[in-house]
Amino acid sequence: MREELLMIPGPVPVLPRILDAMSKPMIPHRGDEFKQLYVEVVENLRAIFKTRNDLFPLSGSGTCAMEAAIANLVDNETSVVCIANGKFGERFYEIAERYTEHVTVVNFDWGSPIELEKVKVTLESNPDVVTMVHNETSTGILNPAKEVGKLTKKHDAVFVLDCITSIGGNDVPVDQLGVDIAIVGSQKCLGAPPGLSALSVSDKVLDLMRANKKRPYYMDIIAYKKSLDKKQTPYTPALPLFFALHEALEVIIEEGMAKRTERHRMLSAMVRTAVTSLGLSLFPQLNEVSEYSNTVTAINMPSGFSDEQLKGGMRRKGVIVAGGQENLKGKIFRMATMGNITEREVSMAIRALGEVLMEKDVKGG
Amino acid sequence: MREELLMIPGPVPVLPRILDAMSKPMIPHRGDEFKQLYVEVVENLRAIFKTRNDLFPLSGSGTCAMEAAIANLVDNETSVVCIANGKFGERFYEIAERYTEHVTVVNFDWGSPIELEKVKVTLESNPDVVTMVHNETSTGILNPAKEVGKLTKKHDAVFVLDCITSIGGNDVPVDQLGVDIAIVGSQKCLGAPPGLSALSVSDKVLDLMRANKKRPYYMDIIAYKKSLDKKQTPYTPALPLFFALHEALEVIIEEGMAKRTERHRMLSAMVRTAVTSLGLSLFPQLNEVSEYSNTVTAINMPSGFSDEQLKGGMRRKGVIVAGGQENLKGKIFRMATMGNITEREVSMAIRALGEVLMEKDVKGG
Repeated sequence: MREELLMIPGPVPVLPRILDAMSKPMIPHRGDEFKQLYVEVVENLRAIFKTRNDLFPLSGSGTCAMEAAIANLVDNETSVVCIANGKFGERFYEIAERYTEHVTVVNFDWGSPIELEKVKVTLESNPDVVTMVHNETSTGILNPAKEVGKLTKKHDAVFVLDCITSIGGNDVPVDQLGVDIAIVGSQKCLGAPPGLSALSVSDKVLDLMRANKKRPYYMDIIAYKKSLDKKQTPYTPALPLFFALHEALEVIIEEGMAKRTERHRMLSAMVRTAVTSLGLSLFPQLNEVSEYSNTVTAINMPSGFSDEQLKGGMRRKGVIVAGGQENLKGKIFRMATMGNITEREVSMAIRALGEVLMEKDVKGG
Repeated sequence: MREELLMIPGPVPVLPRILDAMSKPMIPHRGDEFKQLYVEVVENLRAIFKTRNDLFPLSGSGTCAMEAAIANLVDNETSVVCIANGKFGERFYEIAERYTEHVTVVNFDWGSPIELEKVKVTLESNPDVVTMVHNETSTGILNPAKEVGKLTKKHDAVFVLDCITSIGGNDVPVDQLGVDIAIVGSQKCLGAPPGLSALSVSDKVLDLMRANKKRPYYMDIIAYKKSLDKKQTPYTPALPLFFALHEALEVIIEEGMAKRTERHRMLSAMVRTAVTSLGLSLFPQLNEVSEYSNTVTAINMPSGFSDEQLKGGMRRKGVIVAGGQENLKGKIFRMATMGNITEREVSMAIRALGEVLMEKDVKGG
């Protein structure tokens, strides 16, 4: 069977050298070999996050780390503001609601940019915690982390930023942006398989977590902190995924983050240029503080195409793209440029898209 | 470097065919290929659990599934009784304490058997939930699931049984034992790498979970139930670990559970006979309803040996065994007979142990 080209926003294609590293025999997870690997994973991620904060890799997906951020920090007295302009911004709201009644959402239409004025007004309530998604994968928008970071700091709130699909593809200087908790997923711009996530946590927030007696157990960040000091995880880690992530981070360091960010910028620009040349239009509406995502491009569905016709047409040409989620199903499709893909794969995908559009024209569909 | 023989109670050695299956290229986790794999994993696990209940594989370790059982079921009104005679029995208590104040522990010394009389007396309080560990890995005892299941049923309580290190190595007829929630881990008797777990949940308990509005998010069993009906997981699954578990379950089905249980019984008996022949003694104290574990043997530390001397001596001969945990450190060591190991590996480990003991004698240590 021909291997398909995955252009969905995670899982991304994984390089053979990473798959090889993953399939090593098991080792004891309390032994020296794992300790060394774990420390290297943590230190390499801290360098990529540009943070001096502690960093904790979790054996769970990005959603696990999102919940870890909220569940360790929030009790039923805590007030949370969730800024949302897409599915993953709203996910923070859904999670926070499970832990406190004092949740406010600053909502924008999916695909619309975040308006700082509206955020400013909501933050006048001086919430304890503010959440936002950096790169909104559902709509292809990069949200204004720097500006919201400043507003959050002014109100002395904890700033939780989901960077699941930005870190590793964008320059995300976590400390400089004033981010207290930053989150990444393994199967996006880091180029590793799915199953791991990581979050960096500021000292201030670690103290707040220590004071919370209703912390969760499996994702108890204070237990992770205690174990980190011994170069261990509190519970058995998903060893093969750690082997893979370790190798994926080596790949990133060999490329260099500056070059990697530039590659992501260039590949997404290439997608945007190509699809507009093909007569299609981009889905996101931007303002002066928002940008097109460098890691996933959301494109309005060409007229006359259903979700299945577009995705099915691409799939028959060996390229897997993503549709719209929930209300956007059938209205947009999405092409990711995440991780270790190159110009060659993007060209293949664009060529396939052009053919799918043309075949429909020829058929007069 | 010579590959070491892992005889610790998880992670266990993973067969090359399972590692091969794991290192396949990524696939879309919402596509038909994953759906088919997921359904096969679920159905094969249900056969191994001998259950008609729904079953949910989680992208998280056994502890994740233990917490999922408690967190979905227990709010601050729920009363829980935790029966404990070792580290993992106590872990349920630690987890339950995070969710309700109404927790009682029926505690026995580590290495002592569970006395049904004491359990009976505690259950007179008619708790909502009763937890127990089937195979107590920290001490090498198989606890009386059938008897406690009967007592629990009499009091109409939910019976949560941690079978993390029994299912796949023991016959654990979940429904026949009256177990409402049974839990397994991937890296134990199933012979897969660490990182996944699974729990079966009775219809009665699913209804109780639906009524709990404070369910967790990442391990929300009702979200898993809704997704299972679509042959999906609610969040991105740890794909490579699912590829591996799928293959590991094929290995089990090829061997047959009856033969596999018999192999585990035989290998652990071989360890017990050999260590007593070498003049060592077994750690567990048994009563009429307890048995030696068929998956891990706990052995009193030979006199004159420290934890590091015994484990280090074995390691230098290429065999990794486990020490005692917490208060048992230096007092016992443990050899696992889990998963796909054979008489050959057990013989190697026993020979190494004999040599380590003899060398010490010769040196007059």
